[in-house]
Formats: sequence, C-alpha cells, structure tokens
Amino acid sequence: MNRAVAARHARTDDFKAAFRTHAGGVALVTADNGTDRAALTATSVSSVSVDPNLLLFSVSAAASAAPVLLTATSVVVHLLDADDLALARLGSTSGVDRFADTSLWSRLPTGEPFFPGVRTRICGTVVERLSLGTSTVVVVEATQVVLPDDGRTLPPLVHHDRTWHRLDEGSRIR
Amino acid sequence: MNRAVAARHARTDDFKAAFRTHAGGVALVTADNGTDRAALTATSVSSVSVDPNLLLFSVSAAASAAPVLLTATSVVVHLLDADDLALARLGSTSGVDRFADTSLWSRLPTGEPFFPGVRTRICGTVVERLSLGTSTVVVVEATQVVLPDDGRTLPPLVHHDRTWHRLDEGSRIR
Repeated sequence: MNRAVAARHARTDDFKAAFRTHAGGVALVTADNGTDRAALTATSVSSVSVDPNLLLFSVSAAASAAPVLLTATSVVVHLLDADDLALARLGSTSGVDRFADTSLWSRLPTGEPFFPGVRTRICGTVVERLSLGTSTVVVVEATQVVLPDDGRTLPPLVHHDRTWHRLDEGSRIR
Repeated sequence: MNRAVAARHARTDDFKAAFRTHAGGVALVTADNGTDRAALTATSVSSVSVDPNLLLFSVSAAASAAPVLLTATSVVVHLLDADDLALARLGSTSGVDRFADTSLWSRLPTGEPFFPGVRTRICGTVVERLSLGTSTVVVVEATQVVLPDDGRTLPPLVHHDRTWHRLDEGSRIR
C-alpha cells in the first residue's frame, strides 16, 4: 500500500513531498533590527507554552527576511484571516518591497513595523534562537496581545500544497 | 478597532484566545521509550530544515504522552488526512488506552508503534529537546518517509478553535 523510502537518512524530495500534504495556519512576522525592517509569511508559527507565554516559528536561511528576523530583539506575529490573503502573498513574494505601500503598515510605539489591518497580533521579545540545519527556530515571549475588538472569529487562512484555503462552516467536519 | 492588552507580559487568557484563531495541520506522534508506548495528536508539527531533514513538534508537560515522548529516542509522525479524524480524536482524548484496538496499529521493524492506515508518515531520530516553559520542543531528523502509494493528495485534516476541518476544492481560495 505504501512506498517506503528506507535509508539512514530520508531523501529530501520525499521529506518535502510529505510536508506538502500537511496544512498550516498562516502568519505574517514583522521586525526591525535597528537598521532594516522585514516581513515574512510563515506557516510554522505555533504556541509552545502559557507560563510564560511562548510561541515559536522558523526562518529559512534563504529567506530575504532572515538577516533582520535573526538579529531583531522583538517581533510582531500577525495571525492571518482568509481576508488577509493579500498580505500573506506579499510576505511570501520574492523581490518586492514588502513595505512599499505605506498605507498598509505603521509602527508600534516601541518601533516595530506592523500591519494594523490584521485583527489578531502578538508582539513579543525574542528569548531564544536555535540553529537547526538550514533554518533557525525563533522563540518569542509575548508582551502584548491584540484581539479583534468585536470578539468575532473570522475564517482563518490556511496554506496547503501551494494553495490557500479558507476555513468556515463549509469546511467543518461534523 | 482593536483591544490592546498592554503589559510587560501578555495575559495568558489573551494569548490563548489569539491562538484559538490560528489553524493547524494535524499529526499523530507515536513512540515507545522501551518501557511504555504513547500516541499524541499534535498541531505543532512543522518541517524546519531540509539539510538535514528536520521537523519539530512541542509536547505539553501536562500531556499523558509526555513521559514517553520526552524519553524515546525515535518517533513516528503521521500526517493526517481528513479521513483520519478518528485517530486524531483518539490521540487527543484523555483517559483512554490509545492502543486498545490492536487492529489499528502495528510496530516497525525498529520497534516504534505506528498506525499503518495513515497514508503519510515520517519516522525519525530525536536529535534535540528544548525545554520552553510548560512544554518541550522535540526536534527530529527524518530517517524514513512513507508516501501514499498512489501519489494522490487527499484532503488534509485541520484543527481550528476546537473544531475539525477538511481542506478541499470547496475551501480553496482562487
């Protein structure tokens, strides 16, 4: 039934193929390291701990945002709704200035660039970085959480196999 | 528009509320530490690196599977399709023997328990553990990848705000 790919180390093509079947919620991570700013769409964001409140995400060394995200002391993690698809695309498109449209972003009093159109965001301090192969895992302690004013949960954005999806009543399994 | 919750440390209730809006692909992680076996449904699995092939997931100290998953030297990560919902529920239900139905699981030649009904799985060696607050992040180097024999991608399973979702053409944003 299954094709086993046996070796001491798994083949990278198969490893990538396996993870193409795995869906991920979508976040936009922004930061400023004092000399430059960066924005990166990430599907690796997850909460890790609630005492303290910690989250993590990983940054590939090949990402254009890597030099900033790996030296900034604080970041803003925007958790994207399906309506934020344009921002998700912006943060995952190579060779564009992700801050070109100055109507979309602003700065927190503490200096971090952020996109106020996103309803849910977490600002935090980088507390740990772990270099793992071709990427670095960044661990962040939340210092500020902004939730939707109306308390409503909108359909979230999900990435899967190079496509974008919206979760709503139609996708729900009962 | 937004309710800002300003403090040096974010409130845990708000941190949790933010992550309830964030969707996650669903995996079932299994292991045997030599004295006991464990299975745990996780939405924190993500690929980190492709040279070497590394993935990570986090395990809450409160999880019944924690004692085994935090001492086992190898694990099996099953990436779940929507059709695997019963297994996702099994691995996230407290107080049940997750291996009670012996028709569902088997053992790899190397001893790890696994659920052969899942089409995509990654077996790997634990290469790092990082204690972060109330959880531990487990880093795994893939040693074997099993992909669906027919090469087809089935609708994946996604968890969001305590509900399960299926990604398919109906959820896709065009």
